[in-house]
Amino acid sequence: MDATTAQRIYLVRYPDGMPTDADLKLESMPMPRPGADEMLLRTIYLSLDPYMRGRMSPAKSYAKGIKPGDTMVGATVSEVMESNLDGFAPGDIVLSYDGWQTHAVSNGKGVVKLDPKAAPITTALGVLGMPGFTAYAGLLEHGRPREGETVVVSAASGAVGQIVGQIARIKGCRAIGIAGADDKCRMILDEFGFDAAVNYKDADFRDRLAEACPKGVDIYFENVGGDVFRAVLPLLNDFARIPVCGRIAHYNDTTLPEGPDRLPQFMGMVLTKRLSVRGFIQFDHLDLLPDFRRDMAAWIRDGKVRYREDIVDGFENTVEAFRGLLTGRNRGKLIVKVGDDPTR
Amino acid sequence: MDATTAQRIYLVRYPDGMPTDADLKLESMPMPRPGADEMLLRTIYLSLDPYMRGRMSPAKSYAKGIKPGDTMVGATVSEVMESNLDGFAPGDIVLSYDGWQTHAVSNGKGVVKLDPKAAPITTALGVLGMPGFTAYAGLLEHGRPREGETVVVSAASGAVGQIVGQIARIKGCRAIGIAGADDKCRMILDEFGFDAAVNYKDADFRDRLAEACPKGVDIYFENVGGDVFRAVLPLLNDFARIPVCGRIAHYNDTTLPEGPDRLPQFMGMVLTKRLSVRGFIQFDHLDLLPDFRRDMAAWIRDGKVRYREDIVDGFENTVEAFRGLLTGRNRGKLIVKVGDDPTR
Repeated sequence: MDATTAQRIYLVRYPDGMPTDADLKLESMPMPRPGADEMLLRTIYLSLDPYMRGRMSPAKSYAKGIKPGDTMVGATVSEVMESNLDGFAPGDIVLSYDGWQTHAVSNGKGVVKLDPKAAPITTALGVLGMPGFTAYAGLLEHGRPREGETVVVSAASGAVGQIVGQIARIKGCRAIGIAGADDKCRMILDEFGFDAAVNYKDADFRDRLAEACPKGVDIYFENVGGDVFRAVLPLLNDFARIPVCGRIAHYNDTTLPEGPDRLPQFMGMVLTKRLSVRGFIQFDHLDLLPDFRRDMAAWIRDGKVRYREDIVDGFENTVEAFRGLLTGRNRGKLIVKVGDDPTR
Repeated sequence: MDATTAQRIYLVRYPDGMPTDADLKLESMPMPRPGADEMLLRTIYLSLDPYMRGRMSPAKSYAKGIKPGDTMVGATVSEVMESNLDGFAPGDIVLSYDGWQTHAVSNGKGVVKLDPKAAPITTALGVLGMPGFTAYAGLLEHGRPREGETVVVSAASGAVGQIVGQIARIKGCRAIGIAGADDKCRMILDEFGFDAAVNYKDADFRDRLAEACPKGVDIYFENVGGDVFRAVLPLLNDFARIPVCGRIAHYNDTTLPEGPDRLPQFMGMVLTKRLSVRGFIQFDHLDLLPDFRRDMAAWIRDGKVRYREDIVDGFENTVEAFRGLLTGRNRGKLIVKVGDDPTR
């Protein structure tokens, strides 16, 4: 790649199950040129998040899907290379939404300048960005934690889960993390300070989860679905809340799972335990964003919230890294380093 | 039956599916005698409600089940026959919870005197009692209706459903009722003033329901489960609320229904549509009782709420009437007339 060439990864066709290299292709293209009132951005970091799998689909979801031929979407941290736009100058570091590409032309809409002195610029994609805000809004608004309650979170070492458990502890709750590897469980305990961590791949997972929750479960922050979800259900206390944030175990489902049909039994439990089940997306809660920014900055400064990032080097590794995200290969918030980081 | 004999219906054994005459037996017993600080009550009306099926089970639910040998529970309107209790005198009409029997001795706990001049005494078991309060608390607290929204209620001609739709209309919503017979649908339209009624036994039920909800569904008040529940799901709007009040289609289930497993798909819909699903029981909302009594009395007085009761004559017909309730044979709030009503 030279100064006249850029690269992008685009959707060739809707994947059937796990996305393959035939579904998502990298191609070179001429370097884009900014026009009047535009600027040229160079991607430094690209965020990879589970929601992106939902975009690779013709099915209606909470956001419009992308079509074959489109560049994959995603949040980016970028450097301004050229600017014909007031307020942005070459060398500025910005948070943008340029997708899976090395360069982009932007009219500045939705672009936010970052202060590299305030926090590492990768945090704008993680703990101080969308994943951190998802944890904050979902737990506080829909989980409504009260002191002394038990909070269980799945995908607990991931970008959202790691923050959920730490906020739960700040709010005086017992935090239990579920993850799919022993080193992830250690990370949950040692780095993030959860009260307990359980590996759902262990044969005695259900017993261990029950042991970790001697007073039952008051909040289950759902990121996963599948067997993990079903294991938590019998432990739920009356009036438990289930903020539904994600269902990564199902994103590659191509058919309805085999029976029996567990939906009636679940609805029976909703009734007798008076459960509150609530799906949410962070962008429905933007009114909480100022509170989030204030609280999270203070918690990080005071050492009450720690975070872990998994940075994969090289744009050409994006698709493989994304597949790893869907199978749990990442350790913490997954980010692709697309180009040089001038702040490090 | 003479003045020395009373009758009761007790649980012989837990039913397997639909309760049979071998599961619930009527027997005669000596007339009970009130002791000091007790009174003798004669049952005039016995309320039959779907929740009673849940009590005939060893499974944990929101209330303790009854055991084989126990008299079936239930709300009653009774006449005081003898009283050794301050505040109650022979001839008083009371709301009590004496269960499936012709007479009961009471210490007055939980017993409320009724004023037969204020309202027909049967209404204490229906529109002004538990079913009316269930509709009120569930719709207002968990449905949170806003003007112009569409409210769908299943079992819409029943004790709870008929009130849900009428309160929805009072709150400026479009009210759609689902029931299982054409005469029930007519009742929903002509007596209760819903905007539309759909018979779920019609072959084109799904199409008709969709036609009745051109702007989608904002609140689905769930009394039924099963096919009706599944038919409503695709019509739900973003941010729809589902107060889960009952699941009468499943109360006699003895096994999990055949697959596919629809729970993952449902949870996917909870997420993408940001649904709010909330089980509730009226007794968790007793703080709303004063508001309910004030509002409902005014609505009935102003003709804004009408009600329909289905009164079955004769205590010996109780078990058969209860089976009819589970299969939709009743027309409105089901009540058994156990003894003479001195107020009519």
